Amino acid sequence: MPITSSETAAWRDRILSGDLRALARAATAIENQSRAGRELISALFPQTGRALIIGITGPPGAGKSTLVDQMVTLIRAAGKTVGVIAVDPSSPFSRGAILGDRIRMQRHHADPGVFIRSMASRGKLGGLARGTLEMALLLDAAGRDHVIIETVGVGQDEVEIARLADVTVVVLVPGMGDDVQASKAGIMEIADVFAINKADLPGAERLEQEIRAVQSVANDSGGATAAPIRRVVSADGAGVADLIEVIQDVYRARGAQSRSVATWSLRLTDLLRDEFLESLPAEAIQEHAARLAEKIEDPYAALAALVRVIKSRHMEQEKSV
Amino acid sequence: MPITSSETAAWRDRILSGDLRALARAATAIENQSRAGRELISALFPQTGRALIIGITGPPGAGKSTLVDQMVTLIRAAGKTVGVIAVDPSSPFSRGAILGDRIRMQRHHADPGVFIRSMASRGKLGGLARGTLEMALLLDAAGRDHVIIETVGVGQDEVEIARLADVTVVVLVPGMGDDVQASKAGIMEIADVFAINKADLPGAERLEQEIRAVQSVANDSGGATAAPIRRVVSADGAGVADLIEVIQDVYRARGAQSRSVATWSLRLTDLLRDEFLESLPAEAIQEHAARLAEKIEDPYAALAALVRVIKSRHMEQEKSV
Repeated sequence: MPITSSETAAWRDRILSGDLRALARAATAIENQSRAGRELISALFPQTGRALIIGITGPPGAGKSTLVDQMVTLIRAAGKTVGVIAVDPSSPFSRGAILGDRIRMQRHHADPGVFIRSMASRGKLGGLARGTLEMALLLDAAGRDHVIIETVGVGQDEVEIARLADVTVVVLVPGMGDDVQASKAGIMEIADVFAINKADLPGAERLEQEIRAVQSVANDSGGATAAPIRRVVSADGAGVADLIEVIQDVYRARGAQSRSVATWSLRLTDLLRDEFLESLPAEAIQEHAARLAEKIEDPYAALAALVRVIKSRHMEQEKSV
Repeated sequence: MPITSSETAAWRDRILSGDLRALARAATAIENQSRAGRELISALFPQTGRALIIGITGPPGAGKSTLVDQMVTLIRAAGKTVGVIAVDPSSPFSRGAILGDRIRMQRHHADPGVFIRSMASRGKLGGLARGTLEMALLLDAAGRDHVIIETVGVGQDEVEIARLADVTVVVLVPGMGDDVQASKAGIMEIADVFAINKADLPGAERLEQEIRAVQSVANDSGGATAAPIRRVVSADGAGVADLIEVIQDVYRARGAQSRSVATWSLRLTDLLRDEFLESLPAEAIQEHAARLAEKIEDPYAALAALVRVIKSRHMEQEKSV
């Protein structure tokens, strides 16, 4: 473990004692990707590992924010604290829409037992997975009993963010048509639990059958045990208590996935990739791109030349150490 | 340019002369990521740059395959040849669903002017963007007038694949609800043209207004010219001729985006990242993951140690050359 400066140690201690202002300042340090924030997370890391980290994902319009809002209410009613990380991996344009959605969460604003932060990608390659990991570690160390990570969509970003959770809930709604088949299939890999939201609408039964059909195909090809399916109506909270119970059952049965060696391996790969992307030789890439555009070089030759540039840079850095 | 072996040169010449069996064999070599395939692409690269490459993307259920089928019919009726690359970036489970969709395309099966290939990700990190690029270069060099790349979804994979196209068409349908707002916004970045499919359904007008609303927000924040919007009914082909005309107009106005320096820069970055991911020290990652799971190391220390492992490997490789 690195040596912790006295300033960082004091900050850490305030967070561990439940100081909300110190926690808020830490969240901002993570958002700003500051060095102080990283030192703090290093200092807090030994205190992590007690929170149940819940991932909530699914297509836009599935009512995830309302569901999270209901979950927060029930978790608080049970006397537990909660942190919510709302992740928006899409373009800057969508920020308005997403934040609008989250205004619903404001009724928890005055409750110190609920800490809510939004993470936007800021157009940076990769930084999102790292930032969200740091935020989850922070809230875990700060003693939140539950950490909920809410994401939009079902792309690569969501797969990476699902890796941060102990239990990932995929939220779907009836009436998206049976041709969500393809996207449902992609979801199958990350779902530990399915929540059929707006289950009072017609088509809930059909959606459940469709999920079971895809699950049985996955099972035949050697997949894991089928994820449980629960119906909820997040608008009035029906079924949400049962959903939380199932999440906790899965957590008890499977253990803390978020702290497993396998999960850390995947995360380290993500983090290394992000570091690599940030350190690429932009000028050399530009030069070879120009040669490709003029067709005076072919893509493999360009790639090989760039790999040589990257390696020789590393050698120079090593020599200068 | 690398020296081309006589075998590769003969293969290349057969493809350039329109030999369909040589073309099919090349497509298979690309799918298998064989060395022979890469040598062939190097040899063909100087002959690329004549095709109009069209990307077709959008959420599942938007009727993309039927639209592509109609486009192929019209392109053929105009006496032009076409290659279709159907990309499926999702999990292996979904392959059945997607391929089922593509059975519709089989009416072109007997037409030598239509060459269709599916690309699945095979669960490999990254390889999809590279394989699709190679397939597009192959079909371009083989003299196809138009190359259509069809993808499912709106994630990172689609953004990368959109980079392969000169003109990217985003297909949407009415009735997906106004809460596709978030996902539409993500799409805004890659859309050169919008196709509102199933435009005979109620809600087409509303969807068009929603797109225009998001476009005007994007425009205010300094975005490019708004992408044209066209309504089509792919089931009966209504509006598809007009859509093709708009695609060609955009191509003429903007030039070959797929051959620009900016596009090649982004692609080289994607390809370098894939190479990097394939060369990661799996054992060292596993070791550090175990230390993280036991909390005897923190994530930044693990990351720094792994970066040192990667760099020292590069040094050894350089020395041994």
